[in-house]
Order: sequence, then C-alpha cells, then structure tokens
Amino acid sequence: MAFIKDIGVYLGEEVELKGWAYNFRSSGKIFFLQLRDGSGRVQVVYSNASIPEDQWNALQTLRIESSVVVHGKVKEDSRSPSGFELDGVSFEIVQLAGEEYPISKKEHGPDFLLDERHLWLRSERQWAILRVRDRIITSTYEWMHENGFVKFDTPILTPTSCEGTTELFEMDYFDDGVKAYLAQSGQLYLEAGIMSLGRAFDFGPVFRAEKSKTRRHLTEFWMMDAEAAFVEHDENMKIQEELIVRIVKDVLEKNSSELKVLERDIEPLKKVLAPFVRLTHVQAIEKLRGLGSDIGDRADLGADDETLLTQQFDRPIFIEKYPAEVKAFYMKRDPNAPNLVLNNDLLAPEGYGEIIGGSQREDDLDTLLQRMKEHNLPLEPFEWYVDLRRFGSVPHSGFGFGLERIVGWICGLHHVRETIPFPRMINRLKP
Amino acid sequence: MAFIKDIGVYLGEEVELKGWAYNFRSSGKIFFLQLRDGSGRVQVVYSNASIPEDQWNALQTLRIESSVVVHGKVKEDSRSPSGFELDGVSFEIVQLAGEEYPISKKEHGPDFLLDERHLWLRSERQWAILRVRDRIITSTYEWMHENGFVKFDTPILTPTSCEGTTELFEMDYFDDGVKAYLAQSGQLYLEAGIMSLGRAFDFGPVFRAEKSKTRRHLTEFWMMDAEAAFVEHDENMKIQEELIVRIVKDVLEKNSSELKVLERDIEPLKKVLAPFVRLTHVQAIEKLRGLGSDIGDRADLGADDETLLTQQFDRPIFIEKYPAEVKAFYMKRDPNAPNLVLNNDLLAPEGYGEIIGGSQREDDLDTLLQRMKEHNLPLEPFEWYVDLRRFGSVPHSGFGFGLERIVGWICGLHHVRETIPFPRMINRLKP
Repeated sequence: MAFIKDIGVYLGEEVELKGWAYNFRSSGKIFFLQLRDGSGRVQVVYSNASIPEDQWNALQTLRIESSVVVHGKVKEDSRSPSGFELDGVSFEIVQLAGEEYPISKKEHGPDFLLDERHLWLRSERQWAILRVRDRIITSTYEWMHENGFVKFDTPILTPTSCEGTTELFEMDYFDDGVKAYLAQSGQLYLEAGIMSLGRAFDFGPVFRAEKSKTRRHLTEFWMMDAEAAFVEHDENMKIQEELIVRIVKDVLEKNSSELKVLERDIEPLKKVLAPFVRLTHVQAIEKLRGLGSDIGDRADLGADDETLLTQQFDRPIFIEKYPAEVKAFYMKRDPNAPNLVLNNDLLAPEGYGEIIGGSQREDDLDTLLQRMKEHNLPLEPFEWYVDLRRFGSVPHSGFGFGLERIVGWICGLHHVRETIPFPRMINRLKP
Repeated sequence: MAFIKDIGVYLGEEVELKGWAYNFRSSGKIFFLQLRDGSGRVQVVYSNASIPEDQWNALQTLRIESSVVVHGKVKEDSRSPSGFELDGVSFEIVQLAGEEYPISKKEHGPDFLLDERHLWLRSERQWAILRVRDRIITSTYEWMHENGFVKFDTPILTPTSCEGTTELFEMDYFDDGVKAYLAQSGQLYLEAGIMSLGRAFDFGPVFRAEKSKTRRHLTEFWMMDAEAAFVEHDENMKIQEELIVRIVKDVLEKNSSELKVLERDIEPLKKVLAPFVRLTHVQAIEKLRGLGSDIGDRADLGADDETLLTQQFDRPIFIEKYPAEVKAFYMKRDPNAPNLVLNNDLLAPEGYGEIIGGSQREDDLDTLLQRMKEHNLPLEPFEWYVDLRRFGSVPHSGFGFGLERIVGWICGLHHVRETIPFPRMINRLKP
C-alpha cells in the first residue's frame, strides 16, 4: 500500500491506494475517480475495457465518501494538482457510503457545517487548514528546541487565575468545597520553570469563559507560551520575530499545495520578513488619530484599531510600551518612563491583528509586591510566584501566541471557527 | 553570553555565563562555585589573586540559588560531569537569594517538596526529569510526523464522555443549564480526524476525577492518542513497538547525562528492542496462575498482576485479545474468537506496567449500534461517531500512551508525581 503524497516515487509502477471517493464522473466508457487518502488527492482513470466487468459495475454504484481500494499504474499528468494520475487496473468498495452524505457541493450555513463538523473536516479546504495547522505546530516545536527552549507542561487545573478572576470556567475539585479553575495561560508557572531550565515553553489548550461572540474568539483554544531567563524586552521581541518569520517560511515552502486549495494569496505572506514594523503605543495612537480614530491617549487598542493599523503596513507590527494601567501586574515598568510597561503586542498584517502578547516581567521583589497591592491581588495564592523573586530572581521575559489566530491569518480565513478541529464557542459544545 | 551546554565550543576562550549558584565551597584562597544555567552545570574556580577584591568579597556573601553572572576561561576537566571547568575572572551577584532557601540537601517529605514544587523543580534530579520528559515529547512528535501522522487537537470541553460517565470533572457551560465535561481521551474525535487525514495524533492533557491515591495516578496528565485508517490490529502493535523503541533509543543517546543524574541503570533500557514479548490474555492468565496469582479466566489485569508479569521478561510485553466484557464498546471483536477483542495493552518492564492501551475499532455500523445497546449507551450524543461508520467506514486502529507513566519508567521513578511540572492529585491542586 502506498500513500498519495509519495506517488511520484512509483512513476511507471502499479500501486495500491486506499482512501475515499472524493468525487467522480463518468463519460460512458471512461470513469474518472478523484481519490483522497488523507495525504493527498489523485485522479484514477478507468476504462471499461481495462478492468473486470464486476468492478466496472461496482464503479457505477459508487457514492461520494465511500471507502475504496484501487490499484493503478502511476503516470505523469501536468494538469493534476499532484502532478500524477493513475491508470486504474482494479477497483474495490470497502464500504458504500449512505445515500445522503450531508455535505454537498452547494453552499451550507456555518451552523449546519459546525453540526456536521465530524464530516465537514473531510472537505478539501478543512483538510488543508488542518495540515497547515500541523505545520505551524511543528515549526514552532522545531524553532523552540533549536533555540534552547524546553517543553514544560503547565497545569490546566489551577486554584486561582493568572490575570484576575473573570471569564474563568469553575468546577468542584472533589468533595471538600475546593474549587478548581481552568487555566487561561501557563505564564506564571512557566516563570517557575525557567528558574530550573533557563528557557521553557508550554503549548496546550487554554480556556476563557468569554461571552463575546466574535470571529476571533473561542472558549477553548491553543496557546504557546514561551519564557526565557536573562532575556530583556528587546531580545524578547527579536525571539518573537524570528519565530514568526520561520513559521511563515516553512508553511510557504512545505504547504504550497494546501495554500493553493485555500486560494490564499501568498504575496503578502512572502513579505513577512525581519525586521517587523515597530511602533510605541504613543506612536500607534498618533497614527490611529491621523487615520480618523478617536482613541484616547492611554487606551488599549481594540480590534478595529488593530485592523486599521495593519492596513498601513505590509509586515507584522510590534506595538510596545503600553500605559501600565491597561496591562497586567507582572509586567516590568520602563525605567525611562515608569508609567509605561516593557511589553509588546504583535499584530499580523492584512487586518488580522493581535497574534502575540509579551512582556519583560517584574523581577524585583518589593516592586512586585507593590504592584499586587495596586491590583488588589491577595498574596497567599501568589506566594509561590513571589518566591521566584526571593530566591535568585533574574531579568526575564516571555510571550504567548494564540495558535488559532496564527492559523487563521496564514490560511487567510475570515472566522477562527475553522482553525481548530472541534471549535468551542459560547453556544457550541458539540459534536 | 554562552550556555553551559555549548561550553566545549569555547575551549581556551573567556565566556560569560548567567545562572544560579547551585552549590559552593571555599578553601581559604580558592572558591569553587557550582553554576547551573538551565542547560547544564559547570564548576567555576576562583582564586583570591585572580579577581578584584570586591568581587572576592561578594563571593564570600553568596547564598544557594542566588542569580549570578560570571566570566571565566574554559578549560578541560575530566572529573567534571560536563568535561569542562572555568577559571573564573569575574563574579557578579544579580540577586542575592533570601537566607532560608527552603530546600536543603537533607531529606524532605513528599508533601513538603510538593508544597515547594516551584523551587523543587530546580534541584538537579527534577531538572533531569523535565529534560527527559521534553526529549520523550520531541521524539514522539518526530516519529509520528515521519510516519505520516498529523497533529489533530481534540477538544477538552466535551458534552459527554468517551468511556462512560464516571470519574469525570463536570462544570457549567455558560448559563443555560448546559454541562461540560473534561475529556478523558480524544480517541473518538481522532477517529473523525483520520477520515480526513488518514493518520492523526493528539497530545494534550486529559482528566480523570479518580479518587484513587496510588503512585500511578494523577487527576491531570498528558496523553498521546494515535489513530490510523486502514491499519489493523497487528500493524497497530507494530506502530506502538517502533515508537517506544525510538523513544528509548533517543533518550539513551541524547540524555545520558540526565540519566546519570537520576542514577538510572541503563542496562534494562538498552534491552528495549523489537520484537517485544507478545502474550494473549489467555497466555497471560496462565502465566500469572503459574506464578501463584488467583486471577480469574476472564478478568482484567490489575496493577499487581502487571508488575508480576513484567518481572518475568526483560522487554516490554504486549498483552492482546482481552475478553470483550472487560473492555470498551468501540473495540472490534476477534473474528476467530468473537468473545475477545482485537486490543492490546503494552506493559513496560521492571515492574512499571501499563503504558499503552490500544485496539482495532469496530467499523461495521450495525455491529457498533449493537455494542452501544449492550453497553447501555444513548445514541444521540454518539450520532456523529456512528456517522463515521455510515459514510466511508474503514478498518482502523489506534492507541493512547500515558506520558507520565513513560517518563516514570524511563527515568526509573517510584512515583508519577515527579514526572510532570505541577502534579494534580486528589488532595493536591497547588501551587
């Protein structure tokens, strides 16, 4: 048995392929089968003269999405997406699909498609997205390991929250009144990890019980948090830049056929090169005002502001040094402007907006305690985190990237719901 | 700045290292500093003649786990674990650690160490375990990708459970009475994934609200589920065998210094080669009875049975074809013995026991519906799963491995609590 992705290796030979009937048409004595096997798609051409009559008759009963086994001789075909096609020599149905495959070539609404997500995944666009997602994950692991980061799996079940207690999923942790909360980020735990490992990353699901229904929000999504000891603000941005450049380069090189399926214009992706645009928050506000926005001097950027900004540049944009009051307690202040923090967001171009948030972390014990007081955070649940500043504190920085937003951007998707196998939203927990 | 792992590259040169004081001792005019930086550990030797007086004085104030920056000249030293040591030429304290670092060289109880887990992670044994864990994860990704498996992230928030409804963490999913449950396995979703991708794997946290307190149980742990279309029972075991052989080989080759820290006897690991031992359930029961067990003919194996069996062989053991009544509804029956299923467990040697469970899945629509009836499973929540047998069903198989059990075995640990950064157990949700 061979896989379609390797078909070129068998040029001129007969191969066995196992997969599903993606599409087919017949012109009397010739039958064209579009076969997919998960690794790719190829056309198998049968003529009624070249296969046994019972197999030719079986072809006439075929239905979309039936599972099949075929044998055929591999030949080159420049019109085919794979570059090859098969002269079919045998055909066998493994299971004849039911008559009413729910997903047809006509347009379906998103709710219907999400109800049928387990089948919708088989459509070529969804298949392509899943493969690009896998590539982004793989490139991330590769780059992180090449650069000395160790995978450090932070807990999902936590006794408290990282950035305040709103939008948390809560549950009973066994019987004695203890509550557990699903993690929104692994960052604080990762800070403990780097004091052992120097550099560490986590990459797993995080949860936000947000009631917002937007095209950029899921209640369950995958986040990659990275953290590094002895890395300060500027180097932190450099790390983010290199990682994103690498991811885009790998997808362009290794997933060109998937991007073609998605009809993704790759010209904007080719421009994702270092150095990215760098704006301070002050500069970003100025620019937005010049573009007609009425955003306040010390406001955080909203989704519309981000979209507006990204339309001005053809590269990703770092926005750094936000007003401290709109950001989290653990961010280190800018020594040159103590009402600003040494943080950055990274906005993807073409209107996609925020894909990364990062910062240098406050490493001074007394300052951190002061910040927690200002943010009305109780000390007890954070004692362990404060300990990291008591015993061998070091300058350190980190960031978190939202996998689904990166997949959405690179694949050129309008809605984040197509970026994950089984999306979870406020009104969607099935299938 | 250099990393200790690369120190050999700088032989004869002066380097800057940043890290933590792991240990130190002074003999009058010579000061020996054990420096760790997350990538490794190296000794820096200072003499009072070779560094400025204020820096020599700073050395005398040093405390364990203080963060420091050193400069020194790299020279070979055969007694050192890294093979090198540094002639120190400068020394600077970044932050002097507090006086009472909680973890000393003396013995501490497990509860104390788990309370201080954020600091305990820095001890050399814990550091070594974290690095072996990372290597096992990395080798798994590499092998899966090399063999055509695509990462497919299955959901954590699910409307129902995979294998029955006990031992599930439950929570409210927003306001309208909908309950969500934390996934115990991604398998059923992965079966939908392979109908698109051919071969797929997930690798993420899963949850069991088990009340058992044993050295092999966590409430949150990481599972790698793999699933492949057109793969039957024997090939499924072959895949598991190759993956485990690869993981052990990689750890032996790339983490020898970590295994040394852990004082792991590597001779048993070197014997982890194909082919693994294969026993049917019937043969395993016979063998256990011969060893004095009173296990019943059609019983599942308990932890003690597993330990007993693994002591008889020096390789991992497949136990296949269990009685259907002790296994899950989705397992395919053995056509030659319809009261058995085409499943396998894989037991790690040296008493470690089960690390993998796998099976061929039932792919016939009517048989699956019949099994669900026998298991009293409602149809509605599984309609999507049943759909996979309606539209292009194929023979397929898969398995799930428990990362922490594999880490525990390869590192030679007694308790699974040391195999994950922040373990969660029935009485442990902090820090």
